[in-house]
Amino acid sequence: MDIKSLISFIKTQKSFLCVGLDPDINQMPPHLLSSNDPIFEFNKSIIDASKNYSIAYKPNLAFYEKLGPSGLVSLKKTIDYIPKSHFIILDAKRSDVFNSAKMYAESFYNHYGCDAVTLSPYMGKDAIDPFIRKEKWMILLLTTSNPSAGEIQNIKSINDIPIYLEFLKVIKTWGSYENTMFVVGATKLNEMKIIRKEVPSHFFLVPGIGKQGGSLQKVCEFGLNSNCGLIINSSRDIIYASSNKNFVQYVSEKCINIQIEMENILKDNNII
Amino acid sequence: MDIKSLISFIKTQKSFLCVGLDPDINQMPPHLLSSNDPIFEFNKSIIDASKNYSIAYKPNLAFYEKLGPSGLVSLKKTIDYIPKSHFIILDAKRSDVFNSAKMYAESFYNHYGCDAVTLSPYMGKDAIDPFIRKEKWMILLLTTSNPSAGEIQNIKSINDIPIYLEFLKVIKTWGSYENTMFVVGATKLNEMKIIRKEVPSHFFLVPGIGKQGGSLQKVCEFGLNSNCGLIINSSRDIIYASSNKNFVQYVSEKCINIQIEMENILKDNNII
Repeated sequence: MDIKSLISFIKTQKSFLCVGLDPDINQMPPHLLSSNDPIFEFNKSIIDASKNYSIAYKPNLAFYEKLGPSGLVSLKKTIDYIPKSHFIILDAKRSDVFNSAKMYAESFYNHYGCDAVTLSPYMGKDAIDPFIRKEKWMILLLTTSNPSAGEIQNIKSINDIPIYLEFLKVIKTWGSYENTMFVVGATKLNEMKIIRKEVPSHFFLVPGIGKQGGSLQKVCEFGLNSNCGLIINSSRDIIYASSNKNFVQYVSEKCINIQIEMENILKDNNII
Repeated sequence: MDIKSLISFIKTQKSFLCVGLDPDINQMPPHLLSSNDPIFEFNKSIIDASKNYSIAYKPNLAFYEKLGPSGLVSLKKTIDYIPKSHFIILDAKRSDVFNSAKMYAESFYNHYGCDAVTLSPYMGKDAIDPFIRKEKWMILLLTTSNPSAGEIQNIKSINDIPIYLEFLKVIKTWGSYENTMFVVGATKLNEMKIIRKEVPSHFFLVPGIGKQGGSLQKVCEFGLNSNCGLIINSSRDIIYASSNKNFVQYVSEKCINIQIEMENILKDNNII
């Protein structure tokens, strides 16, 4: 998906919500466990309940790899089930030498058919080169939303700025705002403000809303740009909204509430 | 495997060679392609040909994930085939928030049964916590052997030292030399010298010998400690030593030559 289509879809949906598809057998509604492929059945229900209010889906590979080969079958079925209109992010956080990175890129783009992959920038540009393709996106980790991220990411550089910002000056040259996004955690508002100043046009993938404590309003205050520039991910808060038989209703309600909030933000900022 | 057993196995084998199991259909001897599971057959031959001269195996997950679910079946069969005496490193270079990292740890330790996992330190300690278990090892990326690693890893910190060294001061506190190793590329000798000074007792996993240009003698000069302290990986140089039907002979010869060189180094340094 190119940037024009992405922005246009955000405007059509009046939403910039990404639903994290992180299925956990121990947390999903028990009635699904008797089906042949509970992981897929769960994801299918979540997609049906959320597709009108979201623009993207983000399966995290960890939840599928945990299940061995059958997990990857469920992942492929899930990705194939996502409507073609939606942006598909494979949350892989990979990074490896060129030869191995090439294998990952073939797997993620050719086999699974995703639009974007999350990547760690620590190994330098040749480790991400295989992920640069027409209409595909690399999403580079910058400031993550987990509690101990700062002990590494905020180490000061020789220019007396945090190291994530020093990394940004390098990694923003690896591609353009048309094929590169950055992961900027919702729990790091100060960082988000600084990063937005450094890369005004790039999209951010923002985890950390909901269970992890981030606020949608605050994130938008610091991260929004004239093309929206934000894809806000929510996983657990949405997909485990209820463990009842009618959990899809709860999932839909959660998504509708977020979508309405997003629509208002887009209107207030003259984006739609 | 605990550190005592590892050191003792190095002394018995008179070797500190790790064989990288990175099977690529396009590079393996053509006569294997007609078998039911060429990936496993290839690995099986490599293991048979190398097990007397090596102490560890390191499958890189990228090469298996590329093949979808069947690749993971081949990986599991491969790991089950490796002799129990040998140290098994899953080269995954993962790093994710606690909840996802837990899934990876369960997959790598419980499902596959490996001894060690390579991890990226960029997300901080909570992202690697699930990998800390009795007799298991985390192997943290520090200086990698790929050409553009330096553009990130050598950025200077406020203390006028490269950032990888600043990271090391933090990440060496996450565990001890009994459950933590560091990836230190063979092509980075200056860095290896500095890192060995900072962590005299830790084992290093050293990629980059052979095709990538690193020298075994030089690496040992800078990286060896009184317990050896080095696991030297070689992948392509060994496993693609020949594409003939009798390729296992070439693989054995390559391994024997490296083992003899290692035995001499261990003797010269009074380790055996």
